[in-house]
Amino acid sequence: MSIALPPMSSRLGSVQSSAIRDLLALTAREDVISLAGGLPALELIPSHRIRDAAQSVLAESTSVQYGETSGWRGLREIVAHRESVITGRSVQYAEVVITHGSQQALTLIAQALLDPGAAVVVDEPAYTGALQVFSIAGADIHAIPIGEDGLDTDELERRLRGGLRPTLVHTVSNFHNPRGVTMSQFRRRHLAELADRYGFWILEDDPYGEIWFGAPPPAPIFSDRVVRLSSASKILAPALRVGWMVAPKQVCDAVELLKQGADLCGSSMTQQMAAHMLADTPWLDLHLETLRGEYGRRAAALHRALGAAFGDAASVKPADGGMFLWLTFHDGTDTTALLPTALDHGVAFVPGKAFADNATYSTSARLCFASSPAPVLDEAVRRLTRAHV
Amino acid sequence: MSIALPPMSSRLGSVQSSAIRDLLALTAREDVISLAGGLPALELIPSHRIRDAAQSVLAESTSVQYGETSGWRGLREIVAHRESVITGRSVQYAEVVITHGSQQALTLIAQALLDPGAAVVVDEPAYTGALQVFSIAGADIHAIPIGEDGLDTDELERRLRGGLRPTLVHTVSNFHNPRGVTMSQFRRRHLAELADRYGFWILEDDPYGEIWFGAPPPAPIFSDRVVRLSSASKILAPALRVGWMVAPKQVCDAVELLKQGADLCGSSMTQQMAAHMLADTPWLDLHLETLRGEYGRRAAALHRALGAAFGDAASVKPADGGMFLWLTFHDGTDTTALLPTALDHGVAFVPGKAFADNATYSTSARLCFASSPAPVLDEAVRRLTRAHV
Repeated sequence: MSIALPPMSSRLGSVQSSAIRDLLALTAREDVISLAGGLPALELIPSHRIRDAAQSVLAESTSVQYGETSGWRGLREIVAHRESVITGRSVQYAEVVITHGSQQALTLIAQALLDPGAAVVVDEPAYTGALQVFSIAGADIHAIPIGEDGLDTDELERRLRGGLRPTLVHTVSNFHNPRGVTMSQFRRRHLAELADRYGFWILEDDPYGEIWFGAPPPAPIFSDRVVRLSSASKILAPALRVGWMVAPKQVCDAVELLKQGADLCGSSMTQQMAAHMLADTPWLDLHLETLRGEYGRRAAALHRALGAAFGDAASVKPADGGMFLWLTFHDGTDTTALLPTALDHGVAFVPGKAFADNATYSTSARLCFASSPAPVLDEAVRRLTRAHV
Repeated sequence: MSIALPPMSSRLGSVQSSAIRDLLALTAREDVISLAGGLPALELIPSHRIRDAAQSVLAESTSVQYGETSGWRGLREIVAHRESVITGRSVQYAEVVITHGSQQALTLIAQALLDPGAAVVVDEPAYTGALQVFSIAGADIHAIPIGEDGLDTDELERRLRGGLRPTLVHTVSNFHNPRGVTMSQFRRRHLAELADRYGFWILEDDPYGEIWFGAPPPAPIFSDRVVRLSSASKILAPALRVGWMVAPKQVCDAVELLKQGADLCGSSMTQQMAAHMLADTPWLDLHLETLRGEYGRRAAALHRALGAAFGDAASVKPADGGMFLWLTFHDGTDTTALLPTALDHGVAFVPGKAFADNATYSTSARLCFASSPAPVLDEAVRRLTRAHV
């Protein structure tokens, strides 16, 4: 029997499934080397340490009960301490909310700060998860190009002078997804000045900041108008679903209120496990050193292989951190058209067009070096070379 | 330095923090026996079994990686099987979405089905978490009284004939929060008929259905227009943050799309742990038997003590399941006014007014019997008697 079901919200019409996630479904074939995802390397996730953390926190009965909406106090304090070191100012635990991955923070911030139709500035190209959140929120989305030194704040200033009045500006400041670049100190200061002058929030999305290869990135954007997001997903494990937001207390209060409706609270268990590992500084330092070393070797291997394979036909900058290289063809190759052929040859990537509604990016592609060891990356590039004829 | 921060969303003005959660913060004092919460008894949460489950799933590396947005396939299949048994029809895993507690399902369903201003019918008194979600969604909320046999569908029918056109009707069908009652088979059929006739969704919220004392509750509401919510929080542990939604596939698809934006995915680890325990039928049956027995004894103890203490000055029905008794005074006692005095005497409850915007409920209170053993419940009632003079 088929019946006419009641209607659903009109907002669904404007919401597209994440192109990357749909693609991931297609590229999960055993015979495909996927450089399309943004997954941490499974073999570098500290499974044994996670198992120890589980045993330790499950010995205390509070770890299985409901917890506070804003997160387990012990974890908020550890994050506040680590953020104090990173930002160079004294962050209080009351300025920290633990979220279900930093993606939840993005959604709750959009709900807390945006009325439907509010103007929002995003990177071009942008993290697709942010585009999806702002689209669900009914925002009026404006894209500002990412250059080699991060968000083009000169272009942003021109647009602001032209009358653009964003409620917030979202940018991935370190080891950009998908562009790979890091925002310079000059751009950070310029953005903070513009926020003061034009009265907008800065949403500094920073999941990759601790995965640096040579030297740490510049200090975070310094402003009273910054909301900073980060996460344990890339440095510990995605399955903890532990992200965090650092923001003025009034924003934390608003997000806590919305989080009550969204899910009551996060998992006491995985939050205590994350705290267990983040507080163990000797172990964490060693773990991060391993992660940085191995991801750095993978990044260099992929960069070298791409350079050798495509020469002048494409350009790709080396990575200073994070998980991605950004490849741009100069021979007219359309990466969206290349993808099906690449899949036939057993390799996957994300076409540049997935990250921006702009033809400029149709000759580019995002390649994740993190998930595969160097020999597999070499084989991936051989397959890509055969697909690109 | 104090600066004028940029404004926040206008929707926050209409959103109130959950009265119960704010109250819980006040009643967390060591010297207070709290019957205010809705927490499962810590000593009845199967901590050892949870630790075993953690060890077992963490031996497989997939448990620490990102997972599918709609939930781990193994858990969706187990939930589909259990729901098939409970509902008496064949539920497919594609009709199941795993959520971050059933509270997240409530929020995503509201986003998927409701446009701002859409009419929604709720119980009176209602689960406060639902009121909060529908308020955040900007719904036009209509309350229909809960009687001894559940939602008063005769009153609902009168309102529908009078022109009310809800997009959805939310009700807690089994062992109601806060009223304690269970919807009769007659009311379930009547509600399903009205949904067919007037074309609305039924959101059957059922976190307590498996915590029955004498006999299981009637079969779930049978209709193609039902979205059913339940959870592992009350039968296993809240910290797993594993809830689920059973709905027509088109609704599951919409919720999956919104969940991508909300948090990308749930925790592979806690979902696999929940699956591990839910699939172990011999253990689960024994565990549920223990839970039912002990909660039943606590419910009977609290009922007996209240009857002895207040006699004709108040009435309270015995519980057939769930976690709550609903006490109504007949001597003019205002429970909101009683609460501060009760706290002074070292006992807490939730005043009836927290669950409905209606003076009718100002002489009632919700008392949770689940969190405390019988002798503590006896002491709580002694303190309540002294506060009520």
